[in-house]
Amino acid sequence: MPYVHMQLTREGVTVEQKEWLIKGVTDLLVQVLNKNPATTFVVIEEVETDNWGIAGMTMTKYRRQEQASAQNSMN
Amino acid sequence: MPYVHMQLTREGVTVEQKEWLIKGVTDLLVQVLNKNPATTFVVIEEVETDNWGIAGMTMTKYRRQEQASAQNSMN
Amino acid sequence: MPYVHMQLTREGVTVEQKEWLIKGVTDLLVQVLNKNPATTFVVIEEVETDNWGIAGMTMTKYRRQEQASAQNSMN
Amino acid sequence: MPYVHMQLTREGVTVEQKEWLIKGVTDLLVQVLNKNPATTFVVIEEVETDNWGIAGMTMTKYRRQEQASAQNSMN
Amino acid sequence: MPYVHMQLTREGVTVEQKEWLIKGVTDLLVQVLNKNPATTFVVIEEVETDNWGIAGMTMTKYRRQEQASAQNSMN
Amino acid sequence: MPYVHMQLTREGVTVEQKEWLIKGVTDLLVQVLNKNPATTFVVIEEVETDNWGIAGMTMTKYRRQEQASAQNSMN
Repeated sequence: MPYVHMQLTREGVTVEQKEWLIKGVTDLLVQVLNKNPATTFVVIEEVETDNWGIAGMTMTKYRRQEQASAQNSMN
Repeated sequence: MPYVHMQLTREGVTVEQKEWLIKGVTDLLVQVLNKNPATTFVVIEEVETDNWGIAGMTMTKYRRQEQASAQNSMN
Repeated sequence: MPYVHMQLTREGVTVEQKEWLIKGVTDLLVQVLNKNPATTFVVIEEVETDNWGIAGMTMTKYRRQEQASAQNSMN
Repeated sequence: MPYVHMQLTREGVTVEQKEWLIKGVTDLLVQVLNKNPATTFVVIEEVETDNWGIAGMTMTKYRRQEQASAQNSMN
Repeated sequence: MPYVHMQLTREGVTVEQKEWLIKGVTDLLVQVLNKNPATTFVVIEEVETDNWGIAGMTMTKYRRQEQASAQNSMN
Repeated sequence: MPYVHMQLTREGVTVEQKEWLIKGVTDLLVQVLNKNPATTFVVIEEVETDNWGIAGMTMTKYRRQEQASAQNSMN
């Protein structure tokens, strides 16, 4: 009876991708631990990039830095 | 000083039902463990049915299957 | 299909008390939201008092202060 | 590689305050435990006051009581 | 930068199975959402069967009922 | 009334370090959001390195790779 909680930044995850994630994690738990899918929960939580911190800054700023450095390396 | 986190699918839970859940869980912790209500937290999180997986599919699909099989059994 | 997570300080909760909490929360979700007990999860997590903070200090210290002030008020 | 989850009531937290919280928690983990900021996650979750319970009631009601008692003490 | 939390009952999960779960979930997030494995966290929490509730009872009792009904069906 | 959950790998965090973390996070919430320390919870969870995944492997393996590469760079 596993419970899986996935936290992702809200950056345009589609319903099809959510279905794929839920199917994939459930199948994995069946394969590895022989769990019963009927009582396997997978909860996906999408978090605004302003509310997710990494490296001491918001993901909003982090993404901007990634793009700036990607552009610099192309020049 | 307990902390309780309830995750539910977002399917029209009313403010009155939330008040009932919060009151009920708090009373339970007072009865069973003599906890102090003033420092008992209950956090309710409502999750979209596309973001909740059970039996390897989203709750959106799961609910549709339940309705289809309920209708079939009536025919 | 609710999921409930209860965090409590580890201070001698018995198996009977856990059974009572699990039964009580499940019954509440049936009464208030007509949820199906077969897919209602309740996970109890017991946390060491050194790992639980309140009012800027560990629960270990907080309990000691409570006891000291209770003794003072008796003198 | 710490993961920090902060749950707050949704009462007008600004982007600047979120940046300050993320920076503050990350710095703290570097100072106290020498953690690497590049793999330190801080996730802020804002919860509606109707969904947060304390003292057996919603925060919506709790705030109203606080204001009422503050006004009474001024009269 | 996803964070995945898996809660399982503590029923003899081996280190090899944990490695398989961590690898499997990380690969899934790379395939479905093109996430960076270097900043993908998977935290596995094993919960005592006395602390996990389903159908209003502890998993300890639930497992005993499953075994009893399996034995009955063999007779 | 904030609730903060910190997940760390179990690698010898002392009681003094836990007290420092609890004090630090509580002070931060007072400074940034004027929260009341009396109703601020900080829960620290220490996770075995076999149960924490990063980059598709357990932290146990990850730490071993870090040490091996540190030793190689010294030769």
